[in-house]
Amino acid sequence: MKELTTLLDRIGQRANINLRDLDFDVPSHIRNLVPLDQMVKFYAFYGITPHHPLDFHFRHSSLAGSYFLGKCRAVNSILYKSDIRGDELKQKGHVFRHKDFEIPILMDEGIEIEDSFLIKTLVHNFSHDPKTLERFFIKDTVSAHYANIHGSPCDGCFLGPLATVDLTTMHDSVIGAFSYVQTGEIAHLNVGPGTVWIRSPGEFNFLYHHPLHKLDDYVSFSAGRTPQGFIVDFVEDRKESFQKVFDVVNIEPSVPVPRSASLDRYAVIKPKTQIGENVLVAQRAYLQNASLGKGSNAQENCYIVNSRLSGNNVTAHGAKIIESDLEPNVFVGFNSFLRGRPDCRLTIGRDSIVLPHTIIDIRKPLAVPSEHFVWGLINNQHDLMSNSMAFNDFSKIDSELVQGNLVFEGQGASFVSAFRERIHHILEANGAFFDGTANRGHAQRNQRISFNTIQPYPDGDLEGLYPTIIIKP
Amino acid sequence: MKELTTLLDRIGQRANINLRDLDFDVPSHIRNLVPLDQMVKFYAFYGITPHHPLDFHFRHSSLAGSYFLGKCRAVNSILYKSDIRGDELKQKGHVFRHKDFEIPILMDEGIEIEDSFLIKTLVHNFSHDPKTLERFFIKDTVSAHYANIHGSPCDGCFLGPLATVDLTTMHDSVIGAFSYVQTGEIAHLNVGPGTVWIRSPGEFNFLYHHPLHKLDDYVSFSAGRTPQGFIVDFVEDRKESFQKVFDVVNIEPSVPVPRSASLDRYAVIKPKTQIGENVLVAQRAYLQNASLGKGSNAQENCYIVNSRLSGNNVTAHGAKIIESDLEPNVFVGFNSFLRGRPDCRLTIGRDSIVLPHTIIDIRKPLAVPSEHFVWGLINNQHDLMSNSMAFNDFSKIDSELVQGNLVFEGQGASFVSAFRERIHHILEANGAFFDGTANRGHAQRNQRISFNTIQPYPDGDLEGLYPTIIIKP
Repeated sequence: MKELTTLLDRIGQRANINLRDLDFDVPSHIRNLVPLDQMVKFYAFYGITPHHPLDFHFRHSSLAGSYFLGKCRAVNSILYKSDIRGDELKQKGHVFRHKDFEIPILMDEGIEIEDSFLIKTLVHNFSHDPKTLERFFIKDTVSAHYANIHGSPCDGCFLGPLATVDLTTMHDSVIGAFSYVQTGEIAHLNVGPGTVWIRSPGEFNFLYHHPLHKLDDYVSFSAGRTPQGFIVDFVEDRKESFQKVFDVVNIEPSVPVPRSASLDRYAVIKPKTQIGENVLVAQRAYLQNASLGKGSNAQENCYIVNSRLSGNNVTAHGAKIIESDLEPNVFVGFNSFLRGRPDCRLTIGRDSIVLPHTIIDIRKPLAVPSEHFVWGLINNQHDLMSNSMAFNDFSKIDSELVQGNLVFEGQGASFVSAFRERIHHILEANGAFFDGTANRGHAQRNQRISFNTIQPYPDGDLEGLYPTIIIKP
Repeated sequence: MKELTTLLDRIGQRANINLRDLDFDVPSHIRNLVPLDQMVKFYAFYGITPHHPLDFHFRHSSLAGSYFLGKCRAVNSILYKSDIRGDELKQKGHVFRHKDFEIPILMDEGIEIEDSFLIKTLVHNFSHDPKTLERFFIKDTVSAHYANIHGSPCDGCFLGPLATVDLTTMHDSVIGAFSYVQTGEIAHLNVGPGTVWIRSPGEFNFLYHHPLHKLDDYVSFSAGRTPQGFIVDFVEDRKESFQKVFDVVNIEPSVPVPRSASLDRYAVIKPKTQIGENVLVAQRAYLQNASLGKGSNAQENCYIVNSRLSGNNVTAHGAKIIESDLEPNVFVGFNSFLRGRPDCRLTIGRDSIVLPHTIIDIRKPLAVPSEHFVWGLINNQHDLMSNSMAFNDFSKIDSELVQGNLVFEGQGASFVSAFRERIHHILEANGAFFDGTANRGHAQRNQRISFNTIQPYPDGDLEGLYPTIIIKP
């Protein structure tokens, strides 16, 4: 295990050098986050299909429990139970449009992870940055449990647990626990925990801060400790169910799956779950007494428990939906935590958008009206009033809105249309609109994947490290 | 599956071109031997340890259910449930001695399989040929079920089911079902079924022919049919037990295993089995109510059922031992089939050598004395008299012996010492003589292996073919 210890030290040091301006010490935060002997316990795996690019390169890395699809490279890195999905990367010959620019893609884009340590992190989609279209790089970066790195090249960064960085290039920055950042590009920033920040330069700036004294009950993180809080406990309590899924080589679905839908064999499916047409259930999704209507999806690390999704519902990476009823087209953003209770269910009206990193945790029934945004921390009807707004009203904002912990600047209409367009794109990419021949998406293309499993050296100095593995078509 | 069909046709044609002198048609023999849809059903796997060289290269091949260890390359080949063990290959810097030659090994030897189709075949050890020390090649070759290619480079050959070629370089030759050839080098020969041929030029020539009318009951093979006969049925009847072993990712041994012994996780262990010190149980071994005394080994594809092995017993690749008691140091050669019955057990005396491809199938108790060779087909005491001889007597032969179906020419003493030396080497390599610190062998080195599993394209033109996979340290 000698080499692996050296590698971890090296990664911590490299991140620290990048973050030296911010007075943030990475090694003290990652020490004990994952005991290194865990790194020999879980196999990593990669998917092979005729529908995805196939180009993997793993070198001098530890990959315990991690999953790879598409075109991914990992060098000098430790990836622990992370999902690295390179199946939506840009391909050679395409043209990328950014404002007035039309930029040709000269080679297939790849996800390149170097000198980094990712813990239970999702890396997905394609890099948004027109400066580096062919390289989705993650370099000198550490991310803690259930972070999402979504289309966001990172260089010299630290992401706390349940942090999401979305369509943002980051240099030398720290993103606090449960913070969401979608801002184009940032550098040398320390974004505090519980921040929800969505900015489109020249158009709008949405900035919400979770009240920290309340957020601590759900997620908290400090140096030398593993993440704490109710959301973390919720996930930990369901860990064992995944063990069973990973222990067998092949597994038959325990529920009927329509031909147009796909249920990943690494998802956990508990009784009374129903899967509709065009539904996508990604790996490491957890469904229990969940009904997924036509075109809905359940993305990586999401949990849907005792809930009904009527149709075309997006459950983004890491979202949890408990004792809730969602009308058609409701979108639930990254890492949101929606918790109704058996005697007081949460209902969300048609077309409404639960912004990323929203927490709704109620003790009386609560109904979010249709065509509303909802954000932040909501425990009751009173919170809902300050943390939601009808699209129509939001569209009317043309300079500033201060409401509760939210400050919004710019054009509300742009914000509304940006979200609606993106949700349409997500549904499309996931195959929600498949009509039997056209509009294929992940739900149709991911139905038959061969999973190859890989393990590290079991002994000696290299224990926990994987050999060099190169996979090409 | 289009590409796989083309590949199979290509392999058949290449073998045929090599064998055109012998009037042997390979395609008609391999058609239907393995329906190609089988090639997507089973994962292949390779082992990773710090004790073995690590160098795999798979390209444009189908590898269903095959196992790889060490340094192996497969190109344009179909390997079905084969075991390719490159863990005893010659290494750079060693010196190979052959008579008066001292030949330096300039690069690590590798097993190179090209344009070949191997079915449930064992490929093992290092190539014996001083002309090509660094390349153990198998080229334009087809081998049927349970063949052994042991230290034997092959070019343009066909091996029938349960055929073994041992320490022999072969060009453009056919080896019939259940034939054993250990002759240094052959070319353009068609060796009929049931031949046991052991030759050391200038020293001895051992040539036995199984009576074909009797052999047919045990193994027979003809164009267009899968192999038939009792030995084949015996193996088929136990196939299901292996399925269970392959269905789970990790498996705990069901019997105690001493620290000095190794039990492969892909072996089948049925109740009442006992594993002694320094014992090696290889993958795809099948043990049922089997007692393996100190230093014994059970090699790939062997079956030991209701039998006692007292100690330092070698059960070579593919041997079956049923209702038998073996005294210490008894050697049972490749693919031998020893079948006592509950009411008439077979006993074999200390130090005796069951030559490869021996069949003993009795209906009355039978005892092979100690320090004897035994060979050929034996159904009773009378057969034993003609098909066995004390080492002492054998050593006295100095020109020729004709006895039953055996013709022996040359020096009996050389034959005896050649076998005894080789058996000593096998026990040594397998770790039988480990004393707690020195004399480590496979039994000690193979205790902790990481197995990585690989699968082919599940769909499309490439269905059944594996992507290019390269593994290096």
